[in-house]
Amino acid sequence: MNTTSVRPSQGAGPAAIDFYFDFSSPYGYFMAERIDDLAARFGRRVCWHPFLLGAVYKQFGGQPLPSLPLKGPYSMHDFERSGRFYGIPCRIPDPFPVGTQHAARAFYWLAAQDEAVARRFAQAVFRAYFSEGRDISQADVVADIAATLGAQREALLAGIADETVKRQLREVCATALKRGVFGSPYVLIDNEPFWGADRLPQIERWLEMGGF
Amino acid sequence: MNTTSVRPSQGAGPAAIDFYFDFSSPYGYFMAERIDDLAARFGRRVCWHPFLLGAVYKQFGGQPLPSLPLKGPYSMHDFERSGRFYGIPCRIPDPFPVGTQHAARAFYWLAAQDEAVARRFAQAVFRAYFSEGRDISQADVVADIAATLGAQREALLAGIADETVKRQLREVCATALKRGVFGSPYVLIDNEPFWGADRLPQIERWLEMGGF
Repeated sequence: MNTTSVRPSQGAGPAAIDFYFDFSSPYGYFMAERIDDLAARFGRRVCWHPFLLGAVYKQFGGQPLPSLPLKGPYSMHDFERSGRFYGIPCRIPDPFPVGTQHAARAFYWLAAQDEAVARRFAQAVFRAYFSEGRDISQADVVADIAATLGAQREALLAGIADETVKRQLREVCATALKRGVFGSPYVLIDNEPFWGADRLPQIERWLEMGGF
Repeated sequence: MNTTSVRPSQGAGPAAIDFYFDFSSPYGYFMAERIDDLAARFGRRVCWHPFLLGAVYKQFGGQPLPSLPLKGPYSMHDFERSGRFYGIPCRIPDPFPVGTQHAARAFYWLAAQDEAVARRFAQAVFRAYFSEGRDISQADVVADIAATLGAQREALLAGIADETVKRQLREVCATALKRGVFGSPYVLIDNEPFWGADRLPQIERWLEMGGF
């Protein structure tokens, strides 16, 4: 199990569900809008792990969907149609995809202080990018979003430039690779892996039945 | 619209749904077990188009899932879990994947005589491969399956070696490429594309609402 990133205390209950995602992933966005409520229905908590999909692609030769022939144009269409299907506002932003290291570092910096705020920040980052078209690759934009949740803008900008939080994100990426995470979103329930928002019905069945 | 392969007469009703698949695709198998019944609920017919995924990969550089790092092992696991999820018997056969040109040619040879028999043959080929582990890359195995549906074994073996049916399959593959088909299963409803068995809920919504 990954112990390098923020994990809610588990007490005597079942282990938290691990949710890996990249902030530039539209399917990650859909999962982020659904996974907490779904898990809660079955008495489970979710541990959020933003990571950098590019770090995985670098190691394993994957490519961002938009760059692929045929599959790229299809995916752009599918992103927006899937948003309508889920009832989640989604317009493919320009530029897309973007680097998400500032947003991911800000998440871990916030989580060290208050995990609930970090989670609200993550949802706000996704919405800012996929619903409002803001460029979340910019540290300033990330700081603005955090500020609306009460974070101190300058402290956050200093925090995400600090080696401590940079190392933490590198460790999350390394752990993700070790656990076989190759895409976003990637959900692990008691080590059972589910890739993609379209596996939500299987996740629900898994939680309901305790496996199938 | 594709007019090179078997298409049911459309009469005054809505156009047939186009279903492209490779016989070596487990997600194609799941779609084959579901799409006719789903379409029928909305008064739609389905036109089945077996094609060769390898022909698309050759043109666009795709690779069979099992050969990919991380994604390969995940997919093997997901195939079988998805089978349990749908309630469709599915064990990954050995060898996997296999060449499916004999099976696809046999489909078109049968369809030229009786489209309903060709469809039952397609379902039987999928089940033979993914449920019984028979090697459907072999012309003999394909002929055996067709024989159980009343086809004349020797006539079929001669038919699939004939240039007419070979050319027909090449034309289906060329049309698939032209229509942007890059994977299996790939379903087109009035030119709206859906890739993957996991898009069945979106297909259902699309048929119900006439788009969304």
